[in-house]
Order: sequence, then structure tokens, then C-alpha cells
Amino acid sequence: MTGTLKVIGIGPGAAELITPAAQRALESVDVIIGYKTYLRLIDHLAPDTPRQATGMRQEVPRVNQAVELARAGQRVALVSSGDAGVYGMAGLVFEVLRERGENGIGVEVVPGVSALNAAASLLGAPLMMDFAAISLSDQLVPRDEILRRLELAVQAGFVLALYNPKGKKRTEPFERACEILARHLPPETPVGIVRDAYRTGQSIELITLTGLPAAEVNMVTTVIVGNRHTFAHHGKMVTPRGYANKYELDQTDE
Amino acid sequence: MTGTLKVIGIGPGAAELITPAAQRALESVDVIIGYKTYLRLIDHLAPDTPRQATGMRQEVPRVNQAVELARAGQRVALVSSGDAGVYGMAGLVFEVLRERGENGIGVEVVPGVSALNAAASLLGAPLMMDFAAISLSDQLVPRDEILRRLELAVQAGFVLALYNPKGKKRTEPFERACEILARHLPPETPVGIVRDAYRTGQSIELITLTGLPAAEVNMVTTVIVGNRHTFAHHGKMVTPRGYANKYELDQTDE
Repeated sequence: MTGTLKVIGIGPGAAELITPAAQRALESVDVIIGYKTYLRLIDHLAPDTPRQATGMRQEVPRVNQAVELARAGQRVALVSSGDAGVYGMAGLVFEVLRERGENGIGVEVVPGVSALNAAASLLGAPLMMDFAAISLSDQLVPRDEILRRLELAVQAGFVLALYNPKGKKRTEPFERACEILARHLPPETPVGIVRDAYRTGQSIELITLTGLPAAEVNMVTTVIVGNRHTFAHHGKMVTPRGYANKYELDQTDE
Repeated sequence: MTGTLKVIGIGPGAAELITPAAQRALESVDVIIGYKTYLRLIDHLAPDTPRQATGMRQEVPRVNQAVELARAGQRVALVSSGDAGVYGMAGLVFEVLRERGENGIGVEVVPGVSALNAAASLLGAPLMMDFAAISLSDQLVPRDEILRRLELAVQAGFVLALYNPKGKKRTEPFERACEILARHLPPETPVGIVRDAYRTGQSIELITLTGLPAAEVNMVTTVIVGNRHTFAHHGKMVTPRGYANKYELDQTDE
């Protein structure tokens, strides 16, 4: 009998941002597989279910292991932080299934609160207009393609959510990105920097574009860059939805 | 004494996708305010807490009402479907507070599972590469600006999540968007159409770009348009993360 594979987004980290659907899914399986840091975030859930932790950059072996176990009849959970469908494990699962010609395993993706939603909520409301998510990691995508995409996105007026802005050694894409942003946006453009959202050590910084090159940024950071309408007010970063006159604020204000 | 205002994303609709944080926040307030359709989705939560339902397009009065009550000392919840920070109520709250010069009210934004994450999870894994969210509603943003942004986004290679694709009378932005997409993407590009995600009446369609102009699309629909790498396989829509050769699928496949 073939098993099942649930790909589960556990949200940014805090227990109270893990959906009941994700909790129930974790409780329904025979084995939970994931990157060790993420497994630690769900220590308190389904504590008796066996876990298989893998290291960083072990994505493909991790997915193969999950598929093997499911093919052997197990009910398997594969966890991602944030939303499993946004730079998470869901895509690789389907890629591997296609590669292996494996069609009998029932796959379910359980959505979660993704990093950009988590970061935005801590900053205020920066994502109220059209926005683009861009990963600055050039491990799997050529750097020039990333930077070209960034340049078009900023020209288009998107608010930007930058994932994986900088690695320990991988600093050049971030430096180049800062240059591109500086070329197209005013220096006073608000920029929000959220590290370890809803985890121990969380930090939230609201700066301007001028400060971005020197900002402390790493792999657990989400950077949100405003568009030309974004403003900072009393420590909050806000992108107005549409234009103030259309809201007729004065007419409806009592 | 000044009250508090919690802006709460209740997720796409299903009870099991409302985070414990949102549930707790709803249980902690004196009054819950929201669009009547959304309040119906949380009938079962905090059933004894008074509710004030408002109609569609009553966003500004709704926010003013919430602010008035909070200023009078109440603990107020304002609910949005999906994530309150993505085309939701969070931005308008901060806009209205600034407009009124109101700085004493403590505002908290509770993030949720947004419509694009919900739709993506039902389709497979279309958002594994950089993506852009674009609302096709031209109520608050000039149509030409929306369409220009769409055109740049598709040229940049983003996967696209289209919000509010079509209203009852508002069909032209969608028609124009279909023309722009057809100009830049191959006709066989996978397109996912999700209506009423995780609600009664949910429907999921996986088509190609050719079929988009004639697709049944309305205000409770999220449309996800693939990029040049997106494929459809056994009813799932998948955008590979990076390039297959970098995953070294063959080497790690046992």
C-alpha cells in the first residue's frame, strides 16, 4: 500500500502562528522529516512521532527520503518554515516525483504564514499595494537574472520583499541589489528589516534606503523595500492602498 | 484610558487555517468589526463577543468606527480575510490614524495565511521562484499603472498572483491583462484558477494561458500565471526552484 506525503508550512516560528491544519497534519503521520532547525520549532507538537532531521542544503536527499518512506506505505510529513509553497519544500517534492515517475503517492500541501506576511505584520502594513518577492540567493538562479528581475520590479513600482538577502560568504548579490535600488528609488524610501520574525532574538528595524548597504542582514532576515508611496509614521512602515483622495477620508471622517 | 486595536488576518476561510494567535486575539477583545461575509467565517470563535458588521466598500467608515471605539477605551478587533497586511485592512488603519493625528492607540497586526498561499497550496507548488502579487482592481489605482506593472512583471519572469481579477462590471482590466500575458508568454503556459479557496464551493482549475480569457473568474478568484519554467504534471502546477541540474537529482537519487 502506498503512503501519503504532507508538505507542511509551520509559519515563521512561534507556536501560535502554526495553523490548526498544520498541527493536525503533524499529528496524523508516522514520521516527520525536516531541517533540524525547523524541527526544533515544533518540538511540542506530536512529541511521540519519530523525527528525521537533516542538515542544511540537504533538500534533495530529504525529499528522496520522504518519497521512499511514503512509497513504502508510511504517512510522512515534510516540514518547511513559513509557507511550504514559497521558496519551501513543496516544489521540490513535485519535481522529484516527476523525475522518479512516481504517481501513486497522495501529496497534500498545507499552507502557512510565510516570511513576508510575518515581517510585514511586525513592520506595520508595507504590502498593501502590489508587491514582488525576490530571493537574492544565487545558489540556484544566475545572479544576473536575479538582478535584472529586481531592476524591472523596482521600475514597475512594486514593494519588494527580499528573501535570503545575504549569506555568510554570499554578499555580492546584496551589494549589487543595493546599488540598483539606489539608482531607482529616493534615498528616503522606507526599508524594513526583520530578523528572526516571531522567534527568539526577533529584531525589527525601520530605516531608509540610504542605510541599507550597512544594515545587518543575513539568511534569517526579510528585507521589505517600500515603493514611492510608502511612508514611515510613528515607527510603522505603511504603503497606502491606492490614493488617499479616493478613500474620501475627509468625507467619511466624522 | 485608550484602548487597543488588533487587525487580524483570519486566513482564507476554513476554521483550521485560522492561526491560534488570531483565535486568541479574537477572544481577547470587547468588540469584533468586519465585513459581514468575513464575520460569518468566524461565527464559531468568541461567540459571546459583540460584532459590528459593515457592507462592502465600507472600508473607511469601518476603520473610523474601530478607531473611535478604541479611543473610547475599548479593545477592538478588525478582521480581514487572508492576511490583513496584503490588500487587507492593516494599511488603511495606519492611514486613518495618521490622518486623525491619533497616536495613543496600540495597534497590533496579526498575520494570516493569505489568498496567494492558499491558492498555491491547492494548485501544487507554483510559487517556488520569485513571484509578484498584482491586484487588477482599478477602483483605487489607475488602470494603466496596473497594466504597465503587469507587463514589466511578466517581462521580468515573475510567477504572477492576480488578485481581484474581475468584478461584475469591471471586466476590462482582465481582458487587457490577458492580452499582455499572451504577448509575452507561450500559449501553453500553465495557469491556475482557484475560486473560494478553503471555503464552501471551492473550485480549482488548471488550464493554459490560451484558456484564460474565457475562464470563469470573479472577485473571490485568485489566478496564478506560471513563468517559462512552470510545468503541469498529473494535475499539479509546479514552478521548479532554480534549475534541475543544480539539484543534482541524478546523483542523489538512489
